[in-house]
Amino acid sequence: MTELWLIGIGTGNPDHVTLEGRRALRDAALILVPRKGPGKDDLAALRHAILRDAGAKGRIAAFDMPVRDDALPYLDRVRDWHDRIAAIWARVIDAEAPRGPVALLVWGDPGLYDSTLRIAARLRPVPRLRVVPGITALQALTAAHAIPFNTVGGAVTVITGRRLRDHGWPGGAESVAVMLDGECSFTALDPTGVHIWWGAFLGMPEQILYDGPLAEAGPRIARMRDAARARHGWIMDTYLMRRRR
Amino acid sequence: MTELWLIGIGTGNPDHVTLEGRRALRDAALILVPRKGPGKDDLAALRHAILRDAGAKGRIAAFDMPVRDDALPYLDRVRDWHDRIAAIWARVIDAEAPRGPVALLVWGDPGLYDSTLRIAARLRPVPRLRVVPGITALQALTAAHAIPFNTVGGAVTVITGRRLRDHGWPGGAESVAVMLDGECSFTALDPTGVHIWWGAFLGMPEQILYDGPLAEAGPRIARMRDAARARHGWIMDTYLMRRRR
Repeated sequence: MTELWLIGIGTGNPDHVTLEGRRALRDAALILVPRKGPGKDDLAALRHAILRDAGAKGRIAAFDMPVRDDALPYLDRVRDWHDRIAAIWARVIDAEAPRGPVALLVWGDPGLYDSTLRIAARLRPVPRLRVVPGITALQALTAAHAIPFNTVGGAVTVITGRRLRDHGWPGGAESVAVMLDGECSFTALDPTGVHIWWGAFLGMPEQILYDGPLAEAGPRIARMRDAARARHGWIMDTYLMRRRR
Repeated sequence: MTELWLIGIGTGNPDHVTLEGRRALRDAALILVPRKGPGKDDLAALRHAILRDAGAKGRIAAFDMPVRDDALPYLDRVRDWHDRIAAIWARVIDAEAPRGPVALLVWGDPGLYDSTLRIAARLRPVPRLRVVPGITALQALTAAHAIPFNTVGGAVTVITGRRLRDHGWPGGAESVAVMLDGECSFTALDPTGVHIWWGAFLGMPEQILYDGPLAEAGPRIARMRDAARARHGWIMDTYLMRRRR
């Protein structure tokens, strides 16, 4: 293989795509697209609209995502899953034998809580990588709420929902941004002095925003989240919290 | 005033601009552009190239940035400076009397270590705000190094150089991203087990990248930074560090 391009495409608003991303989508010889995942119909339609708008001329090869082995402990499960995805990519690329760069579309940014870089590192021979940054859900969140990510001179910690549940509010951070939280982990915190800004389906027409003091907004967001997930069959959401010093 | 658009334009690569940003630049009635700042000639040329590429039709009004009052303590100095910038914007907008949205171009993303939102909040009447997210230096950094921002399930803390100097490595974070560091604050850390990925002029043709174990890479980066700043007359840089658990 010559080159593998990991292209960040933003969070669901086709206008989040950068000029660099658009050109990369247009110029790739082969584009690998997963057949399944959360919100597969909505997101697949969006992905195809983005490819069409970019004038993608490369071949689009769909592949099936493997199923995670829930019997394994967390880190092993992730490692095993990445191994199997890499094996699938290798097979598809081998079968397609592209004469040019192979591209993968990544929601958000390929650097932020995304596995694509780690899966790519498992390919042999190791491909030449190009990463095209994209707008993340956190940026779509702070933009939609028109708030800064950080306080003046303050620290922001970005963590997963699991981490927030297991370890609580990270020491020293005024602001905490949470990703990959399927369980409203903010409900486990002491809400005193904490404000939360939440967003779901960020950048999409279905976008929902809510913010308020965590004590009142927390339970309300949990209910809104359940209702939205029931309505759409899936949900992608993220939030930022700040604690008064 | 009707609307104020804060438009993230990325870090110096005109191709970082998103489709949304491009349209907003095209549709604004008045665009406020500062006359001074670090790398004023290089960055002013870049800004004008971005505006031209976007097909901006609005009037471009240059304004002089006030000087910071170094006699004041840090937070007061920042507050006073923001007050004075807001007063200048208000005067320019008043004089231009635009019939449509007023736009400000923001390097990176208007939400991340940028004052534009806080300055905008000082305008009276408070304008209707629209924030257009843009690619940040941190994303340009991780993309250029082709590395993830975070470890699997791990926390990343984003801080300023000042904060790193005053408080050391933030508790609980595997990864630390540092912005606004004019003083190579990484030299104050115990480098044991720490890897650093550094980048300057990210996204620009002048881009410089370096990474390695902090013990060896740290002094080297400090020298490269001095040399690059002497050569260009200014520098913008950022870095990510990870500590082995």
